[in-house]
Amino acid sequence: MSSEFGKSLKLSVFGESHGEAIGCVIDGLPAGVKLDMDRIYLDMSRRAPGKDKSATPRLEKDIPHILSGVLNNTTTGAPLAMIIENTNTQSGDYSNLMSLPRPSHSDYPAYVKYSGFNDVRGGGHFSGRLTAPIVFAGAVAKQVLAQKGITIGAHISKIGSVSDIPFDMNDVSCDTLAELSSTSFSTISNDANKKMRDEIEKARMNQDSVGGEVECAAIGLPVGVGANIFSTVESHLASMLFAIPAVKGVEFGVGFDFAGMNGSQANDQYCVKNGNIALKTNNNGGVLGGMTTGAPLILRVAIKPTPSISQPQHSVNLQTMEEETLVIKGRHDPCIVPRAVPVVEGVVAFALLDLIMQENK
Amino acid sequence: MSSEFGKSLKLSVFGESHGEAIGCVIDGLPAGVKLDMDRIYLDMSRRAPGKDKSATPRLEKDIPHILSGVLNNTTTGAPLAMIIENTNTQSGDYSNLMSLPRPSHSDYPAYVKYSGFNDVRGGGHFSGRLTAPIVFAGAVAKQVLAQKGITIGAHISKIGSVSDIPFDMNDVSCDTLAELSSTSFSTISNDANKKMRDEIEKARMNQDSVGGEVECAAIGLPVGVGANIFSTVESHLASMLFAIPAVKGVEFGVGFDFAGMNGSQANDQYCVKNGNIALKTNNNGGVLGGMTTGAPLILRVAIKPTPSISQPQHSVNLQTMEEETLVIKGRHDPCIVPRAVPVVEGVVAFALLDLIMQENK
Amino acid sequence: MSSEFGKSLKLSVFGESHGEAIGCVIDGLPAGVKLDMDRIYLDMSRRAPGKDKSATPRLEKDIPHILSGVLNNTTTGAPLAMIIENTNTQSGDYSNLMSLPRPSHSDYPAYVKYSGFNDVRGGGHFSGRLTAPIVFAGAVAKQVLAQKGITIGAHISKIGSVSDIPFDMNDVSCDTLAELSSTSFSTISNDANKKMRDEIEKARMNQDSVGGEVECAAIGLPVGVGANIFSTVESHLASMLFAIPAVKGVEFGVGFDFAGMNGSQANDQYCVKNGNIALKTNNNGGVLGGMTTGAPLILRVAIKPTPSISQPQHSVNLQTMEEETLVIKGRHDPCIVPRAVPVVEGVVAFALLDLIMQENK
Amino acid sequence: MSSEFGKSLKLSVFGESHGEAIGCVIDGLPAGVKLDMDRIYLDMSRRAPGKDKSATPRLEKDIPHILSGVLNNTTTGAPLAMIIENTNTQSGDYSNLMSLPRPSHSDYPAYVKYSGFNDVRGGGHFSGRLTAPIVFAGAVAKQVLAQKGITIGAHISKIGSVSDIPFDMNDVSCDTLAELSSTSFSTISNDANKKMRDEIEKARMNQDSVGGEVECAAIGLPVGVGANIFSTVESHLASMLFAIPAVKGVEFGVGFDFAGMNGSQANDQYCVKNGNIALKTNNNGGVLGGMTTGAPLILRVAIKPTPSISQPQHSVNLQTMEEETLVIKGRHDPCIVPRAVPVVEGVVAFALLDLIMQENK
Repeated sequence: MSSEFGKSLKLSVFGESHGEAIGCVIDGLPAGVKLDMDRIYLDMSRRAPGKDKSATPRLEKDIPHILSGVLNNTTTGAPLAMIIENTNTQSGDYSNLMSLPRPSHSDYPAYVKYSGFNDVRGGGHFSGRLTAPIVFAGAVAKQVLAQKGITIGAHISKIGSVSDIPFDMNDVSCDTLAELSSTSFSTISNDANKKMRDEIEKARMNQDSVGGEVECAAIGLPVGVGANIFSTVESHLASMLFAIPAVKGVEFGVGFDFAGMNGSQANDQYCVKNGNIALKTNNNGGVLGGMTTGAPLILRVAIKPTPSISQPQHSVNLQTMEEETLVIKGRHDPCIVPRAVPVVEGVVAFALLDLIMQENK
Repeated sequence: MSSEFGKSLKLSVFGESHGEAIGCVIDGLPAGVKLDMDRIYLDMSRRAPGKDKSATPRLEKDIPHILSGVLNNTTTGAPLAMIIENTNTQSGDYSNLMSLPRPSHSDYPAYVKYSGFNDVRGGGHFSGRLTAPIVFAGAVAKQVLAQKGITIGAHISKIGSVSDIPFDMNDVSCDTLAELSSTSFSTISNDANKKMRDEIEKARMNQDSVGGEVECAAIGLPVGVGANIFSTVESHLASMLFAIPAVKGVEFGVGFDFAGMNGSQANDQYCVKNGNIALKTNNNGGVLGGMTTGAPLILRVAIKPTPSISQPQHSVNLQTMEEETLVIKGRHDPCIVPRAVPVVEGVVAFALLDLIMQENK
Repeated sequence: MSSEFGKSLKLSVFGESHGEAIGCVIDGLPAGVKLDMDRIYLDMSRRAPGKDKSATPRLEKDIPHILSGVLNNTTTGAPLAMIIENTNTQSGDYSNLMSLPRPSHSDYPAYVKYSGFNDVRGGGHFSGRLTAPIVFAGAVAKQVLAQKGITIGAHISKIGSVSDIPFDMNDVSCDTLAELSSTSFSTISNDANKKMRDEIEKARMNQDSVGGEVECAAIGLPVGVGANIFSTVESHLASMLFAIPAVKGVEFGVGFDFAGMNGSQANDQYCVKNGNIALKTNNNGGVLGGMTTGAPLILRVAIKPTPSISQPQHSVNLQTMEEETLVIKGRHDPCIVPRAVPVVEGVVAFALLDLIMQENK
Repeated sequence: MSSEFGKSLKLSVFGESHGEAIGCVIDGLPAGVKLDMDRIYLDMSRRAPGKDKSATPRLEKDIPHILSGVLNNTTTGAPLAMIIENTNTQSGDYSNLMSLPRPSHSDYPAYVKYSGFNDVRGGGHFSGRLTAPIVFAGAVAKQVLAQKGITIGAHISKIGSVSDIPFDMNDVSCDTLAELSSTSFSTISNDANKKMRDEIEKARMNQDSVGGEVECAAIGLPVGVGANIFSTVESHLASMLFAIPAVKGVEFGVGFDFAGMNGSQANDQYCVKNGNIALKTNNNGGVLGGMTTGAPLILRVAIKPTPSISQPQHSVNLQTMEEETLVIKGRHDPCIVPRAVPVVEGVVAFALLDLIMQENK
C-alpha cells in the first residue's frame, strides 16, 4: 500500500495531520526549471483553510520548505523534497475518536487495517491536510507544463443545488484558466459565486455540510499523449483524482450524459480550421482512444459533503461494540469544494506531466 | 505507453482486431487454483458479439486457448498465457479509414501518435475486441475471488432513456449477483430489459447508436482492502475501468449525487447488527478513506454510444487535409452496453484481486 | 512474483519447457522500426542447442512466430507478442524428478514455493529454454539500438581454466562486436576457442559439466544514460542479467579486481582526444555515478556449470524424506556458456534500450 | 530516472551533500513494529565518517529525525519520513569542480546529463553521504526481519591485498552475525583486521586510496522467497547493491569461482539433517532458480578505491576543453570499505524485506 504516484515523475507524500511535519518527494523533475515560488505559495494559499470569505488569497501558513532538488530557485534534476511544519495542532479534541469512528470518515476501516496503530490525531495520514503537498507538487508541475504551452485551470461547477456556467468544451481560453487558477472560490459566474456562498452559509447554520463538483480544463496539449487500454489519459488522471479525499466520481467530456445520448449527437465530427484538422464538438473532453486529441481536456469530479458535522450522529464503540451517539467538537469546514479546486488543478497538472514525460521519442 | 495493468497480479494484453491472434499474459496468479473452464467460456460468450437477441448465451467463438501456466486445469504459479485466434477478418471494409478518421474513434490521435504505422484494420490494437482477453482475465480472477468468498456481478443500469432498478446499495444478495453474472443482457427488471431492447432497436432503425451505464457490485470483501492517498480502491478500480473503450465516467456509491447532498443525508452512520458493527446506509459504496468497509462495493460506469454509425459524418482527409463525408460500411453494434457488462465485472474482479494480493501480512 | 522486466519497455516472458508454447510480449516498442527477421533468426539459432560443433549457425528450430505488433515487418507501436511452439518434448524422462530434486536446480525451492503445483516437465517455467524469448526480445532491441548507433557484442571470456583475450576496455571496435555477435561459440582468440572446446569435451567425457564467463561490450552509447542511486546502469543491467539461469556474478569494468587496487591505478583520468573530452583508461567499464561516460560499456557475468550431469548424485525423496541416489538420464549440455553469449547480448540490449527510453527530454 | 527502490516496500532517498538536509521516505512498512532507536543510531554511527580508529562506534552525528509514520516508537503503517540535517558543510573547497571533473567520480556524466544544473557542492545528490538514509532504512528493515527470525551481518572480506576469513557458507551462526553487525571495521579475523588497517594507513601515507570487498550473510530465511526469471533474489539484491556508490561487482555463493569449476564439484547435493532436507554444500549461496533454499544467503560486493585522492591527476576543463592538472583539496577517506559494511547490510535487509512482503499468500 503506497502513498506514491507516477511513473516517469513520482510523487511520494508523507505526514500526519498532528505530526511534526507533512511533505513530499518529487522524483524525476527535469533539471533547469526556474521555479516561481510566489506562484507556488499562491496555490498553497488557495487550498489553505479560512479563505472562504474572500476571493483574494493571502499567504498565511502552509509555507512549503524545500530541502533538496532546488538550487538558486532552479531544479537540479535531483529529487525535490519539501516539508510543511505543523503548528497549532490541538490534539485534545480527538480523544474519543479512538473508539468511536466518525461516519463517512476513514476511521473504522483504518482501525481494522492498521490494528489500531494508525495515528488518529486529526485524521493522521488520512487527513485532508495531506492534500497540501499534492497542491505543492501540482504547482511545480504547472510551471513545467507552462513551458510546454499547457495551461490548467478549474472552477467550482456545483455546490448543493447551485451550478456555475460550465466550460465551453470546445473553446476554453487561456485567460479564463489563468484567472480561475489565481483566485480562491473560483467560479465563472459571479452570480453563481454568491449563491454558492449562501448555500455553504446555510449548511453552516444547520450544523451541516454540503457537497459539490469541480470542473477542470487543460489546454495546449499536443495530440497523442496517452495510449489505449491500460495507459489511457482517463485512467491515469482518474487514478490520481480518486486519491483526493472525498472525490467519489470522475467523468470526462459529457461523461455520464453520454448514457442518454445517440451516437449521431455524441460523435465529435471533424472539420478544417485554419488549415488544420479540428473537432466540431468536444463531447469526448479532449480524449479519444485514451489519447489526447488537441481539443481542451475537460473533466469533472464529484466531491462528497464534509463528513465532519456538528449534529449528533450514530456510531458504535469499537471497544464495547455498543451503539453510542457521537458529537464531533471543534470548527469544521461546511464545504471543502472551494479548497478542492487547486487540488484538482494540481492533480491534473502532475498526472499530465507524468504522462507527457512517458512519451518516448 | 503500456497495455499492462497491475502490481501483484499483472495483466498484459496484446493483439489487433485483424491480426493473427489476440491474447494476454496473467502474471502472479497463485498456484493450485482449479479453473472451471466452462464458467470462463460463459463470460467470454457473454461478451462476444451477436448475443443481443437472447438471454441464454451460447458458445460460438472467442475460444480462449491457454498456452502456459495451467496444468490439469490447475494454475501452476507460472505466467498464464492465452490466445484467441482471429478468424473471419474481412479487412477490405477499412481501406478508406487510413486517411479518413472516424469521428469519436481513436483513428486521428493514433495516426498522429504512431506516425501512421499503427494497424488500422478493424481498429487494430484499439479495437473493442481487445476486451475479450480482459474478460478472460477477469473470469479467472473471479474464480480466485470466489475461493475467498467474494462475489461480483453487474447489470445494465441504463440505456438511453431507460433505467433498470438500481442495486439496494446496503443489501446486495449473492444470488442476484450470481444470476446477473450468468446471463447476457443482464438487468434486474424484466420490464426495463424489454424497454432497453426497444431503445436499441430504435437506434438501429435510425442507423444510429445509443449509450448507457453499467452498475457493478462486489460483496464479501474484507474490511481494510486498499489504502488512502494513491492506493485507494477507487483509484485502482477507476484506473482499470477507464481502460475499457467507451467508458467516460466512473462513480462510487451515490457518486455525482453527492454533489447535491448535505452531510447529514450523505453520512453513513454506524449501528450494531448481529453483534457486529455495520453501516445504516451505504452511500459511500463500500469504500471510506480509500479502504473497503465490508459493505457492498458499488460502482457505475458511463458508456458512450458506439461511435461507428451508418449515417454520413463529416471528417477530414489526413492526406489532402480537405473535408470529406465519411460513410462507415458494414454492420455495427448499435449499443455495446450489454456486452460491456462482463467486461466491467472482469475488470472489477481483476483489480480487486490485485489489491487484495498487495495486502501484506 | 513476476516474469516481467522493464519500465518504459516491458518484457513479459511465459511458457514451460514441455508446454504447448513459450513466448513473450514486448510492450512499449517505438512504431515504425523495420525488423530484419533473418538477423533475429540468427540470434535465436546461436542460442538453440546443438551448435557447439560449428561456428556457422544454421537455422533449425526455435522459430519465433509473431502474433501482433508487427505489420509489413515493421513495428506498429502496439505490444509485440511472439510464440515458439514446443515440439519434440519427451516428458517421460522426468518422472522421478517430482519427488527427487536435482542438485543445484530449482526443483526443491520451487516444490516448496508452489506446493507441488508447478510444472516439473523439463524444468517447466524454470527451464533454460525460457531464455529463447529473451534472446528474441534482445534481438529486436539490438535493431532499435542500431538505429541509434549503438552496437553490442559478447564473447566467451572463460571456460573452466581457459581464458579468451579480454576486450581492450577503452578501445572496442564495431567490427569486432559485429563479428562476435554473428557467430556461435564466439571468442576473440582462435587458440582459446580450440582449447575451450577441448575443455568442454573433457567434461563431457567425464559425465561432468563446466562453468565459465561471458564478457559483453556496448559501444556508441551517449553520455549520461542512467542515474545515480537506484537507477544506475549497473543496477538495471545486473537486475536483468541475474534473470539468466546459472548467472551467479556480475561485474563492470575491472570489477572485483578493483578490490586489490589503489585509487591512483584505478582512477580513469581525462584527456582531450580529437577535440573532445575522453578517458585515458576505462577501468570503470563505461559507467560513473551510475551514468554512461561515452566509453565502451564493459561487463562480465559468471556462469555456473550445468547442474544436470550424468554422474550419480545424492538427493532426498521429498515424499519419504529419505536419502536416495539420483541419476539424471538423457543427454545434457556439458557447458551452456557458448549458448549464453546471445542471451547476455540480448539482455544488455533490452535493458539498455529500456534505460535510454526512460531518459526524459 | 529515480532515486527510489522497491515494490511492496518503497524507499525514496533525497538530499544533497551540502544542502539543508538529506533523508528518505519508507512507504509500506507494516503497522505495529516497535523500533529500537538505539540500534538504528548504532548502524548510522557505523557508517558515519571518522570511525576507522576504533571498533567501538560512538554516536556523534547523522542523527535521524523522524517526521512521520512513527508514534510512541511504533510504526503506524503510514509512510515513514526521516531527515538528517546537514551541518558543517564547507562548500568553498569545491569551487573548481564545476569545470574540472574529478576522475572516476560522477562529475562529468552528471554535468552532461543535467546540463550543468546539478548541485556539485560536495558531490550533491551523488555524494556517498546519501548512503546514510539507506543505512537508516536498512536498520528499520532489520528490525522487521528480526521479528521473522532473520538475521543479517557483513564483514570486510578484503582490503587491497589482505583478506579476512570468509564465511563458512553452509554454517553461519547468529552470534557471529550479531557481533559483526554491532561493530565498526567488522572482520572475523583479528589479525586480518590489523593488517587491513595497515593497508589503509599505507594508502593514506601515499596520498592514495585502496579498494576492497564486503561479504554479507542472511540466515533464517524461509524456503521459496523470490522467483525465477525477472524476480530472482539475485536480481533484486544486485539491483539495490549496485545503487551503493563505488560497488562495481556482485556475486552470490562462490560467484565468479563457478567459472573454473566442474558440475560435480559445484553442485550442492541434498542430505537429511535432523529429519529435514538440507544441503551438503552451499556453493549457490542460498539461492537456486532465483529462490531461497533455506541455506544461508551469501553474497560479496567489490568496492572500488575512493576516487578522491590528493595526488595530482589529469582532467579536462569543461569550459575551455583544455587539459589541466587537478588537485583535490581537503581530507578524504583513503578507504570507504569499512563504512560500506552497514550499507551493504542495510541494502540486503531492505531488499529482502521487500521480496518477502511480495510473497502472496
